[in-house]
Amino acid sequence: MLTVYSEDHRLQHGQAELVDGKLMPCFEMPRRADMILARVQETGLGQVIEPRSFGTEPILRVHAPRFVSFLEEAWTLWTQTGRTHDALPLNWAVRDMRDREPEVIDGKLSHFSFDAGTPITAGTWKAATSAVDVALTGLAELTAGERGVFSLCRPPGHHAAADYYGGYCFLNNAAIAAQAWRDQGAPRVAVLDVDYHHGNGTQSIFYDRDDVFFASIHADPLQEFPYFLGYADEKGTGAGEGYNANFPLRWGSGPDLWFAALEEACEAIDRFGAEGLVVSLGVDTFKEDPISHFRLDHDDYLRMGGRMARLGIPTLFVMEGGYAVEAIGINTVNVLTGFEQQG
Amino acid sequence: MLTVYSEDHRLQHGQAELVDGKLMPCFEMPRRADMILARVQETGLGQVIEPRSFGTEPILRVHAPRFVSFLEEAWTLWTQTGRTHDALPLNWAVRDMRDREPEVIDGKLSHFSFDAGTPITAGTWKAATSAVDVALTGLAELTAGERGVFSLCRPPGHHAAADYYGGYCFLNNAAIAAQAWRDQGAPRVAVLDVDYHHGNGTQSIFYDRDDVFFASIHADPLQEFPYFLGYADEKGTGAGEGYNANFPLRWGSGPDLWFAALEEACEAIDRFGAEGLVVSLGVDTFKEDPISHFRLDHDDYLRMGGRMARLGIPTLFVMEGGYAVEAIGINTVNVLTGFEQQG
Repeated sequence: MLTVYSEDHRLQHGQAELVDGKLMPCFEMPRRADMILARVQETGLGQVIEPRSFGTEPILRVHAPRFVSFLEEAWTLWTQTGRTHDALPLNWAVRDMRDREPEVIDGKLSHFSFDAGTPITAGTWKAATSAVDVALTGLAELTAGERGVFSLCRPPGHHAAADYYGGYCFLNNAAIAAQAWRDQGAPRVAVLDVDYHHGNGTQSIFYDRDDVFFASIHADPLQEFPYFLGYADEKGTGAGEGYNANFPLRWGSGPDLWFAALEEACEAIDRFGAEGLVVSLGVDTFKEDPISHFRLDHDDYLRMGGRMARLGIPTLFVMEGGYAVEAIGINTVNVLTGFEQQG
Repeated sequence: MLTVYSEDHRLQHGQAELVDGKLMPCFEMPRRADMILARVQETGLGQVIEPRSFGTEPILRVHAPRFVSFLEEAWTLWTQTGRTHDALPLNWAVRDMRDREPEVIDGKLSHFSFDAGTPITAGTWKAATSAVDVALTGLAELTAGERGVFSLCRPPGHHAAADYYGGYCFLNNAAIAAQAWRDQGAPRVAVLDVDYHHGNGTQSIFYDRDDVFFASIHADPLQEFPYFLGYADEKGTGAGEGYNANFPLRWGSGPDLWFAALEEACEAIDRFGAEGLVVSLGVDTFKEDPISHFRLDHDDYLRMGGRMARLGIPTLFVMEGGYAVEAIGINTVNVLTGFEQQG
């Protein structure tokens, strides 16, 4: 399987994030992608190529123009106030507050985000747009005839909605690829999100649409970040009703429950009749992940890839989360190998 | 003038808050109240008394029962997960997210707050309820015949809404006192908020009511925390339409602009016909305040108190913000002295 990878991911290297009320070294670190790339090379999965540049046009098909401009200028505005450390917001427009865009950068950070754990750094814009190019280059290779391609995106994307960032995500790589696939003529595209955390951004982007089916298997939001989306009763709205499927699982869930949910999700994607599949590939479902509570093991990732292959449609794997850094390469490449071995 | 004060304020002593993307020692610190008390004693302002206990009933007249229960149990739930440092939330329900109360304490912190800068500690509940008692004891002394009473509340309260905390505030001391005054038979009560930051919590609590008039002079929310409330076009809703008046001023505003706004606010309170006045007294409008951008000087606070006295109605001063700690005593007591000297 072909892998698309860019060194630019290193430009997103936050110094600290707020965890449990303390500033901690960021779990979402460059070494994550290094470990995956090393494993890709070590196992001889296939060729590794650089991304081509696609510009901002495909990004603007998914994200709001003001949001995209903000991400591009945020670091400059931040440093113009004399600050050189990572930019983090302080407060958010909850309940009856008015969701206006303030004039000052501190207020803009608040307006365009939903958490306090996603630092904007000097390299964030370049890293985030390179990750989009990694996804779109993967899609181009796929539509040129590949059966499966791995876009080793970093930073991840599935928590980013049309106009807010958070959860380590700025631009929604998977959603941008799915939209581009639609724009290139695929009538129906499915996004299958297997990250431990709900893909709230992707759901939000496609929630009122019947041309992109979204299915997500994740920790119950009553127990886990992002808390405020990802419930089973969220099935889509308007034309999109019936085209969103959430499979929240309780803390401690192991392979039995997880694969039963995968089976349901795959059957729904089958019924939908997707011509293309984007997999939001997080491996923080691993039993030793430091911030997660599922119990999948190395071999489960082989099985996961195998089941995805049996859908029998072109599949773009887009990297999302996974924080057990020493195991992230093994688990990720196991999914891809499982996919290759099936069929 | 009588001052009401409780040592319990010391129990709210956060270790750190997120400022400009860094964890910094909390600006909202016990020494603030110490400096004010010292100045009260040094100037011979009047007797200092301890608060009496009023229980949770008057709190529940303003705050949602679930929110109050949450504040009471938050620290216990937090420590049950093995953590002993200050509790801070991580993410918030913005835009299209669903505002549900999660099962886990981390999610509850998110649901019941609006910022990342307000630590819940072992002593938060006791300190916050004592501050309410300080406000209510002040009200009791006032209705027993005093012309003006100073409730030296800490933690402050004006950013706390019916069911969310933030901005160093947990329970809205001023709003609880205003409501209690109404419940004791005052037909019309006004709250005049002169803190540098908009009193979003107080506005939110009384926004649909015509029996409590809220006026606030503060930094333009386009430039300043809390960003998402405090605009001039917020005039109340339903029965409350016309009973909310915001006077946002730009960074750098000095005495001319500030006192012009105070004049307008006082005239509106006059027209309203308030029988009682609660002043949310923040002195972070001071020119040397470390987190603010107005330019009031020591003598301006004397003038401020004088203008309030000319309203000629019983006045309860409830302490809010002010972070130029060395000057906070002088500026606060100047307001009270200015009030005493007039009339």
